Amino acid sequence: MADGYIVNGIAEKPAVFDMFFREAPFDGVYAISYGLNKALQDIADMTFEEETVNYLNETDTFSDDFLEYLSNWECEITIRAIDDGKIIFPYEPIAEVEGPLLQSQIIETYLLNCFNFPTLCATKANRMWLAAEGDPIIEFGLRRAQGPDGGITATEAAMAGGCEGTSNVLGGKKIGVAATGTQAHSWVQAFDTELEAFRAYAKAFPDSSILLVDTYDTLESGIPNAIKVGKEIEEKGHNFVGIRLDSGDLAYLSKEARKILDEAGLEDAKIVASNQVDEHVIKEIKSKGGKVDIWGIGTKLVTCYDDPALGGVYKLVELDGEPKLKISDNIKKATIPSKKRLFRLYDENDKMTGDVIQLYQNEKFEGGKVYDPTNPLLSYEVKSPDKIEPLLKLKLKNGELTEEPKTWKDAQETMKQDIENLQEGSKRFLNPHLYKVSISRKLFELRKEIIESH
Amino acid sequence: MADGYIVNGIAEKPAVFDMFFREAPFDGVYAISYGLNKALQDIADMTFEEETVNYLNETDTFSDDFLEYLSNWECEITIRAIDDGKIIFPYEPIAEVEGPLLQSQIIETYLLNCFNFPTLCATKANRMWLAAEGDPIIEFGLRRAQGPDGGITATEAAMAGGCEGTSNVLGGKKIGVAATGTQAHSWVQAFDTELEAFRAYAKAFPDSSILLVDTYDTLESGIPNAIKVGKEIEEKGHNFVGIRLDSGDLAYLSKEARKILDEAGLEDAKIVASNQVDEHVIKEIKSKGGKVDIWGIGTKLVTCYDDPALGGVYKLVELDGEPKLKISDNIKKATIPSKKRLFRLYDENDKMTGDVIQLYQNEKFEGGKVYDPTNPLLSYEVKSPDKIEPLLKLKLKNGELTEEPKTWKDAQETMKQDIENLQEGSKRFLNPHLYKVSISRKLFELRKEIIESH
Repeated sequence: MADGYIVNGIAEKPAVFDMFFREAPFDGVYAISYGLNKALQDIADMTFEEETVNYLNETDTFSDDFLEYLSNWECEITIRAIDDGKIIFPYEPIAEVEGPLLQSQIIETYLLNCFNFPTLCATKANRMWLAAEGDPIIEFGLRRAQGPDGGITATEAAMAGGCEGTSNVLGGKKIGVAATGTQAHSWVQAFDTELEAFRAYAKAFPDSSILLVDTYDTLESGIPNAIKVGKEIEEKGHNFVGIRLDSGDLAYLSKEARKILDEAGLEDAKIVASNQVDEHVIKEIKSKGGKVDIWGIGTKLVTCYDDPALGGVYKLVELDGEPKLKISDNIKKATIPSKKRLFRLYDENDKMTGDVIQLYQNEKFEGGKVYDPTNPLLSYEVKSPDKIEPLLKLKLKNGELTEEPKTWKDAQETMKQDIENLQEGSKRFLNPHLYKVSISRKLFELRKEIIESH
Repeated sequence: MADGYIVNGIAEKPAVFDMFFREAPFDGVYAISYGLNKALQDIADMTFEEETVNYLNETDTFSDDFLEYLSNWECEITIRAIDDGKIIFPYEPIAEVEGPLLQSQIIETYLLNCFNFPTLCATKANRMWLAAEGDPIIEFGLRRAQGPDGGITATEAAMAGGCEGTSNVLGGKKIGVAATGTQAHSWVQAFDTELEAFRAYAKAFPDSSILLVDTYDTLESGIPNAIKVGKEIEEKGHNFVGIRLDSGDLAYLSKEARKILDEAGLEDAKIVASNQVDEHVIKEIKSKGGKVDIWGIGTKLVTCYDDPALGGVYKLVELDGEPKLKISDNIKKATIPSKKRLFRLYDENDKMTGDVIQLYQNEKFEGGKVYDPTNPLLSYEVKSPDKIEPLLKLKLKNGELTEEPKTWKDAQETMKQDIENLQEGSKRFLNPHLYKVSISRKLFELRKEIIESH
């Protein structure tokens, strides 16, 4: 397509693209935005090396003009986007990309790739973080990720979404978190008896032993042996961290384990639970009085198991100053035309009350009557909000980053603040309270006009 | 754990680990093995750089002896494994890893990471390839993959599983396939009219135009405009490739499109269909007489949407010559002890009749009575097979590769041969015929003995 724009002499036309998604994942109402910081840095640094251009040339697909354009690539893209870690909702622009048509087109797949999965994974982690109500959650999913690098992408997004640690050594190295973990069944099998295995582990890690108690029989053998060794650790003046449950009825076993550990005087020993844990499992175990202190979450997190794709898309909304619209029989699939602004409204208690999309040309929040983007019959009058937050921030100006690169830690902090400001009902897993995203009256009328003129 | 083995003086004990999975994905009975070739090469090349060891040292977690071991790493691992592209089944060893306990333990996560997702993705592609009955299937999923590299992993596995092409330019470059693709809606939106957009595309790509016909109205506007431009292309002596349908009722629209194209004399024009396509969609559209020629498959393939994790695991089965077993209340989770061989049996028509696992020490296939690995009540007598194929091949010997590295093309060829040899019933999507994987009588008895002695 980029080549085609050159052949047709429209590569330099000024364009605006929107990136957005139409449905919140996991039957929730929101997502946690993640991945754009990385994408923005990569877009700013983007070049086409000689070897790359030669390869494209050898495929016999592209015009010389296009290949020359790539060789002399100079980024003229401007991006306004929502911060990583912010709560985001369906239909609102997460990023607006402006620039020559060719350039703003060619980054489409990269931008979507950097946004879709990381945002999905951060959102999944966030749900588990909410369910855990302050218990640490640790990412254990590398063996089920999309290759070694897919695993690193997952680790970083999971941390942004609320994880406190990871078992991914390389992923942890790359993002500045020392990996953490426990032992596998093969450790226990490698010794003649379970007791011997636990003692050997304690010898190697006197202050960081978490003993896996389900290799043979959790209650009859695993926990009694762990208690023996835990006491030996404490008697030597070291710190016994605790045990890990990795199979069976985690609610029941954690309650039993807590009782037995407490009776043995090991009140400080932690109980780690793993095995197909997700937010629903955590919630269920807590509601049954389970006594888990730390959650190890792997497969369900890194594969985003119950909803493994976020449908983020990238659509042309303006070209040469003219609003552009993709029409569809299904109004849900029609796009929202023009370059836009996005405002988040708050009440006097700092709670978010709704997001409103309006035309870029009107700098100030317009207020007044606003409309649901998918159903023109739904509208409401915005009451004067106590706070108005503009969400699209200038991140890249003519190919130059406008701020210092941020990290997953910044995103996690942003997320925690946003979660505090979100109404409780919107955080529910079952039938969560809908959050209003609306378009301004002027934008509504422009869109209607274009659809009708078609 | 590796450090712990050193501290306890057992790092050098000879160990054998099995890699296997317990359930075939997507409600099927088999998987297509993929990813081990890459893993084996990486394991052969594995070293720990100074910078890595320094980083681990700074985490203050590991003993000096362990860090020194890593610095002087020399691979002593031997691996027997099933070829990439082979059909594989639950419970059978896909790879047996032998070597010093520390070394064979430390590669666990990497090996699982290289096997689990690629095998899952190759299997998903394979199901769509089967459903397409010879129509080309093209991988379009990069924007939904786990980061840029997750996308490359997905592309390669999809090709091994039966795809004929990919829209991933970098992924294609890495595996020697020129990327292919059509246009997006933004192309059509970038021009004043759809007709103008199609003409412009034809100008840029006179011999490779596939026109996306659903931006405004597929039957009323998209197809008529495509026919106009298709004829202009042909009149100029070029080749009109065809159209792409990306929304709506693909069965109905493809039949209508075929009729209109044929009436216009464009019998050779192809119809490409995309939009949430998977094997069930392909099958349904075909059963309704749909006229799709080429399938574009994205999200459902690269995320393995309906079953996004393969549960491949890695278990210790022998240490110091002694068989090792992980016992569980659930016989399905108990492992199969000892170093083993795996044979595939064929009948006189070259159809696979069953796989049998036996002890390694008996070089020849034993035959006789064999047992289901999950239910001791299920057994049968092996009739003299017409062909016996040993499946575990020596791939890595003491850290050295024993054969030239293979590619996804070799795997795709292997897959096609294996699919031909698999009974039709086992390829069904609904209630497929189970395929028998059994353990030999001697192995059955050894396992029983160990369980009972525990």
